[in-house]
Amino acid sequence: MTRNAPAFIFDLDGTLIDSVYQHVLAWHDALSEVGIELSVWRIHRRIGMSGGLFTNMLLRETGADLDEATVAELPRLHAAAYKKRADSVRALPGARALIAHLREQNIPWAIGTSGRIETAGPSLGMLDVDPERDVVVTRDQVKHAKPDPDLFLAAAETLGTDIQDAIVVGDSIWDVLAARRARALAVGLLSGGYGQDELERAGAYRVYDDPQDLLTHLDEVGAR
Amino acid sequence: MTRNAPAFIFDLDGTLIDSVYQHVLAWHDALSEVGIELSVWRIHRRIGMSGGLFTNMLLRETGADLDEATVAELPRLHAAAYKKRADSVRALPGARALIAHLREQNIPWAIGTSGRIETAGPSLGMLDVDPERDVVVTRDQVKHAKPDPDLFLAAAETLGTDIQDAIVVGDSIWDVLAARRARALAVGLLSGGYGQDELERAGAYRVYDDPQDLLTHLDEVGAR
Repeated sequence: MTRNAPAFIFDLDGTLIDSVYQHVLAWHDALSEVGIELSVWRIHRRIGMSGGLFTNMLLRETGADLDEATVAELPRLHAAAYKKRADSVRALPGARALIAHLREQNIPWAIGTSGRIETAGPSLGMLDVDPERDVVVTRDQVKHAKPDPDLFLAAAETLGTDIQDAIVVGDSIWDVLAARRARALAVGLLSGGYGQDELERAGAYRVYDDPQDLLTHLDEVGAR
Repeated sequence: MTRNAPAFIFDLDGTLIDSVYQHVLAWHDALSEVGIELSVWRIHRRIGMSGGLFTNMLLRETGADLDEATVAELPRLHAAAYKKRADSVRALPGARALIAHLREQNIPWAIGTSGRIETAGPSLGMLDVDPERDVVVTRDQVKHAKPDPDLFLAAAETLGTDIQDAIVVGDSIWDVLAARRARALAVGLLSGGYGQDELERAGAYRVYDDPQDLLTHLDEVGAR
């Protein structure tokens, strides 16, 4: 077993940025535009997974029959509907302070998001995170997004950290599942609106309210 | 113990109508307008309780200091922000079918909502529920809303049903707590976006996905 100091890999939406509900309703709009009516809570439970898997899942579960061109349109419709709501998006409490603390303590950290740089860009700006300077892995850079482990593996590699020394912090069960597939430890945050039980059942070894709560308890997860 | 045939008392938002996420973001807007920044998931966890208690809670938890006039403004700001999102609100799957089934089987039912008739009106229309003909108790008609039991007690009284024969169906822990205070049995639905565990811990004796899933399993809760 490795006993090195931990590195942190963060999910973005719902973990550092308070944007999950806006993304959920943006997907609801996008699906509605192509004639698919899916309950909002069901969309919420799938948020954070790869957009491709999300689309496959919903076609399978709703029995909807969309042609390839319409399916290919969905990411654009979602991005447009999200942009209309982006004004109400904020950094989560403690997100900037948590990153500032890690920088100060020279604890390695990175961001790994299933989103594309187009929508992730403004969120990174809110956190003073710069992809030119900081380690940010987006959907654009890997073949498979969550719950596949690729995003977190790529982040660890860029950090030069063994993935087994990494603590993945996420708000959705897809983050937790991807962390487990990568053999990282997963910390769950409630700030994406999932229940504590859902995150623990998925395998989170600790659950906090939000980045502020994690920062207050950082020593519990091995950061010194 | 009573062994009469059960009556059903339904919450509205999140239980029969897919409107919780729109209400949540509308509250986020309203609070933002008066200078209170509260994470969206924290608003979600309070949705469904009395607006007055909701406001007290958030002033207490955020430490915000609002004058009485501003506090009195909040319901109007929320209603206005909700109206802007009302186009995307739908009846939940099975909601109309469930009500039609209860009507057909002459099983008594009512609606008890913490909302006011102003916002509840259009939702009732989507369900073909008419307050002139059907039993609907809104916030306007009782002194205290959920988690106080008044709404459900008033609904049972209007139905002419002993509250102990009533099955309260709701999506939030405030519905479940109010049902328990009224000594009714509570059935939880996941369609408001709470986790199953949260509803069970609050005391739901059975949890289903949504109205469709409840309709499929109606005999499990004693309806014949």
